[in-house]
Amino acid sequence: MSSGPTSDRTRLRREADRGSHDPELIRSIIDAAPMCHLGLTDHDGHPLVIPTIHARVGEQLYVHGSAASRTLRRLAEGIEVCCTITHLDGIVLARSAFWSSMNYRSVMIFGRARLVTDPEEIELALDAIVEHIAPGRSAEVRRSTPKEIGATKVLALTIDEASAKVRTGDPNDDPADLDPEVGAEVGAGVWAGVIPVTTQFGSPIPAANLDNEVPLPTSARGLLEHDER
Amino acid sequence: MSSGPTSDRTRLRREADRGSHDPELIRSIIDAAPMCHLGLTDHDGHPLVIPTIHARVGEQLYVHGSAASRTLRRLAEGIEVCCTITHLDGIVLARSAFWSSMNYRSVMIFGRARLVTDPEEIELALDAIVEHIAPGRSAEVRRSTPKEIGATKVLALTIDEASAKVRTGDPNDDPADLDPEVGAEVGAGVWAGVIPVTTQFGSPIPAANLDNEVPLPTSARGLLEHDER
Repeated sequence: MSSGPTSDRTRLRREADRGSHDPELIRSIIDAAPMCHLGLTDHDGHPLVIPTIHARVGEQLYVHGSAASRTLRRLAEGIEVCCTITHLDGIVLARSAFWSSMNYRSVMIFGRARLVTDPEEIELALDAIVEHIAPGRSAEVRRSTPKEIGATKVLALTIDEASAKVRTGDPNDDPADLDPEVGAEVGAGVWAGVIPVTTQFGSPIPAANLDNEVPLPTSARGLLEHDER
Repeated sequence: MSSGPTSDRTRLRREADRGSHDPELIRSIIDAAPMCHLGLTDHDGHPLVIPTIHARVGEQLYVHGSAASRTLRRLAEGIEVCCTITHLDGIVLARSAFWSSMNYRSVMIFGRARLVTDPEEIELALDAIVEHIAPGRSAEVRRSTPKEIGATKVLALTIDEASAKVRTGDPNDDPADLDPEVGAEVGAGVWAGVIPVTTQFGSPIPAANLDNEVPLPTSARGLLEHDER
């Protein structure tokens, strides 16, 4: 990945001070997110936004789905996509409605989806998706059969045209709202700050058909130990 | 809202058993989400997916942004959009990689964005957005000035072409993986179940420039009392 804008689309415009092309930052935002929103244009020219899980291997972002899915078939045509990943990190309560905001980390990746056809790359991508969601899980589960792999489409997007945007910290209030002369009724007396937002994992719920003697696996224990993303 | 598919786009295809056109379900998913991902096609025909906060008033979904934003100006042309809202509710660990899944609630809304120009509707939408994020907050903050409102664009999308998709509960394992005859190495001995995922609010962080005597307001206390969405 380049650390500058690699295209007109990834040049940061609005609130450019929040933006970055730092590859490490971009990778960290991608890797910390359980899912992404993939945008494409359908055959009729209408936009479509699909929530889906993903995994990154080097500079490849992989997504997968049913080979029978119309959207996956459309993506497999090699069309342009925009993959957006967003972490909501906090609610920023300013003294005014106008300066109220959100703390977040987001990434946008542009490019053309590529249908993965090489069996080794398909296996690598499917393992990576399982590992992305629950590290260690791919070694615990029954591996996919050729029939199951045949029922799955894997798509790749090269992460070379991407940008990140991050907002952290306090509200940026209008200085006039902090003036004690103006008084409580305008803004100086209004509470301001950030309410952090986190994603957490709860207690595992064993499947109804699970034999009681089967212990909680390493992957599930790992999720509970790192219960914040 | 109609309770059936109102267009070809909202007809449920893949995993139609997870889908619904129930207006109440659709509204509840929209209202419980702090943000949405808005998909559009830019002037060059490329897809673009923007994370943004939203609010629903009746059958209108409102979003807002800077009047100077290129994306907002593009949306204000009345172009087609797809607004997708997703709650990730659980990681579904099946006995096999193939049947592993996620529990989620999602909504897709299709339509044309409408630039809101009526001053009363603008005010109603901006209040609704503040209230959506932090109920009670609009009465606590300094209200927007005409200049601030002038720097803001509000867009509306009518929620009349929408569908929901929901997955809940246990993994749907391949019955062969539950057969104790086949033994632990294939699937019957693998732990299966759901790891719940929740979004939580943490302890408020007062702004560095906040007067210590300003108490935590009703809106922030409300978020902490309902700290799970």
